[in-house]
Amino acid sequence: MINVIILGSGKVAKHLYTAFKVIPEVTIRQCYNRKGILLDDAQAQEDITTDLSQLKNADVYILAISDDSIQPVSEQLPFTNRLVVHVSGGKSIDVIDPKNNRGVFYALQTFSHGKEINFEQVPFCIESDNPVDQKLLSSLAGFLSKKVYPISSHKRSIIHVAAVFVNNFTNHLFSIGHDICQEHHIPFEILHGLIEETALKIKEMPPDKAQTGPALRNDTKTIEKHLNTLSVASQKEFYSTFTKAIQTKYGKEL
Amino acid sequence: MINVIILGSGKVAKHLYTAFKVIPEVTIRQCYNRKGILLDDAQAQEDITTDLSQLKNADVYILAISDDSIQPVSEQLPFTNRLVVHVSGGKSIDVIDPKNNRGVFYALQTFSHGKEINFEQVPFCIESDNPVDQKLLSSLAGFLSKKVYPISSHKRSIIHVAAVFVNNFTNHLFSIGHDICQEHHIPFEILHGLIEETALKIKEMPPDKAQTGPALRNDTKTIEKHLNTLSVASQKEFYSTFTKAIQTKYGKEL
Ligand SMILES: NC(=O)c1ccc[n+]([C@@H]2O[C@H](COP(=O)([O-])OP(=O)(O)OC[C@H]3O[C@@H](n4cnc5c(N)ncnc54)[C@H](OP(=O)(O)O)[C@@H]3O)[C@@H](O)[C@H]2O)c1
Ligand SMILES: NC(=O)c1ccc[n+]([C@@H]2O[C@H](COP(=O)([O-])OP(=O)(O)OC[C@H]3O[C@@H](n4cnc5c(N)ncnc54)[C@H](OP(=O)(O)O)[C@@H]3O)[C@@H](O)[C@H]2O)c1
Repeated sequence: MINVIILGSGKVAKHLYTAFKVIPEVTIRQCYNRKGILLDDAQAQEDITTDLSQLKNADVYILAISDDSIQPVSEQLPFTNRLVVHVSGGKSIDVIDPKNNRGVFYALQTFSHGKEINFEQVPFCIESDNPVDQKLLSSLAGFLSKKVYPISSHKRSIIHVAAVFVNNFTNHLFSIGHDICQEHHIPFEILHGLIEETALKIKEMPPDKAQTGPALRNDTKTIEKHLNTLSVASQKEFYSTFTKAIQTKYGKEL
Repeated sequence: MINVIILGSGKVAKHLYTAFKVIPEVTIRQCYNRKGILLDDAQAQEDITTDLSQLKNADVYILAISDDSIQPVSEQLPFTNRLVVHVSGGKSIDVIDPKNNRGVFYALQTFSHGKEINFEQVPFCIESDNPVDQKLLSSLAGFLSKKVYPISSHKRSIIHVAAVFVNNFTNHLFSIGHDICQEHHIPFEILHGLIEETALKIKEMPPDKAQTGPALRNDTKTIEKHLNTLSVASQKEFYSTFTKAIQTKYGKEL
């Protein structure tokens, strides 16, 4: 049995809580957050504390809190020599105060409120100070997912940059597509299938092979027409930058 | 029964051929392409012509050929007053020679060789000169898909720009993610689940609500670290441009 305490009440805290709750080998001993928020409707108020000094004993303390609060909160913990982990993709293991054993428990996925996650295929990047903790984190992640990887802080930060491109920036492109549709009274839903297929395709072929479109074909007439269609300056800028980048990558000149 | 002749042997021609082949209400009377390529292994050589003057009679001629060849090939067709359609998102119905009845049969999806498509959920944007042809194209699309929309050339060209953002440019972001992983010997597959979830999420919430990441959080430390991690100039440029755009859109200043 692994005893867990979750700190934080945001997106990751809630998703981890929901996932751990149904694992027989895991007990969520307690949760901490500043406002005393329940992590789900069924949680008992007495299992929540808003006071770090009231934290119970546990095998692992999961800091599912904003990146910048990991260090100060870890410093405020009123105990030493226990296992304290954060869940951030971008932060080093070193931001945790070394008075405790440190670790990372990073789920490489995008979490939102109100969108369920099946953890089974979510890659967990784990890291720790010592082999005993590594084994515990590996077991803990293994209860949730089939994909558990020991990854150094350096490698994780690189994965995190790549994730920013394929998740955050991609979503911004969706939002531009959404704006273009909205401006012209076209339901954005018409693009849903295309978006899904774009994502699924790279499971079957590398993105370089999946690339299509006017930029790749060096179709200057369509490119010009598109630039004229776009009325928002930043959309035009993105269009030109991507077109140039695709043409440079695949060896065609404008 | 609708008699169809498909011109072209590329991605769209092959996918349409495969899809129509199993529709009892559709007969593919003949196919044309310059090299006499079979559209699938089972096709009989005599059903292919490389000579436009040998084209048989049909209810509709589908020009599934490169955008820039639609006009010249439509001019070379040795008949008049029949229904000739193209399948392009970006081209107006007017590029087809008006000696024939003109139409558009645009499947809003991304097609690649070797990646099967289930047409049932693919939106078809159809357009024509007259109500009779409109009805025929609507039936034809309706055999393949549940989503058939009459869309003008102008609206279609806007949908096409939006599609370039969410498909072509998105795929380029995947390719940058792939390059970053490759440079650091990280298997790109680790990002597959995140990419899939990023795409699926916008079916449940608008992209503006799904936006996350260091740019949105105005997390300057992480942004700086990421820019230092990136070694390729164009990757740095994309990172900065997206970061600025996200911060502008959601009202935060760098
Ligand atoms: N969202 C994702 O897709 C995702 C994916 C992987 C990893 N992560 C990582 O998960 C961690 C949490 O992210 P999230 O998305 O769950 O954020 P979130 O939904 O914004 O929640 C942030 C949580 O941090 C708490 N917090 C902030 N400052 C605090 C402080 N000084 N003391 C105590 N609690 C504090 C907040 O509590 P209050 O309500 O009291 O402010 C809130 O519960 C971050 O390290 C992030 O990098 C996120
Ligand atoms: N791929 C997509 O995702 C997609 C999606 C929606 C719509 N479309 C549209 O579908 C159409 C075809 O695109 P595709 O992706 O299938 O292209 P593709 O795979 O590159 O195939 C292009 C086809 O056009 C033929 N062609 C080019 N110039 C010709 C000419 N002068 N005379 C006769 N045939 C000629 C080529 O024949 P040769 O082999 O003899 O050169 C080839 O069969 C375009 O209008 C495109 O905009 C594509």
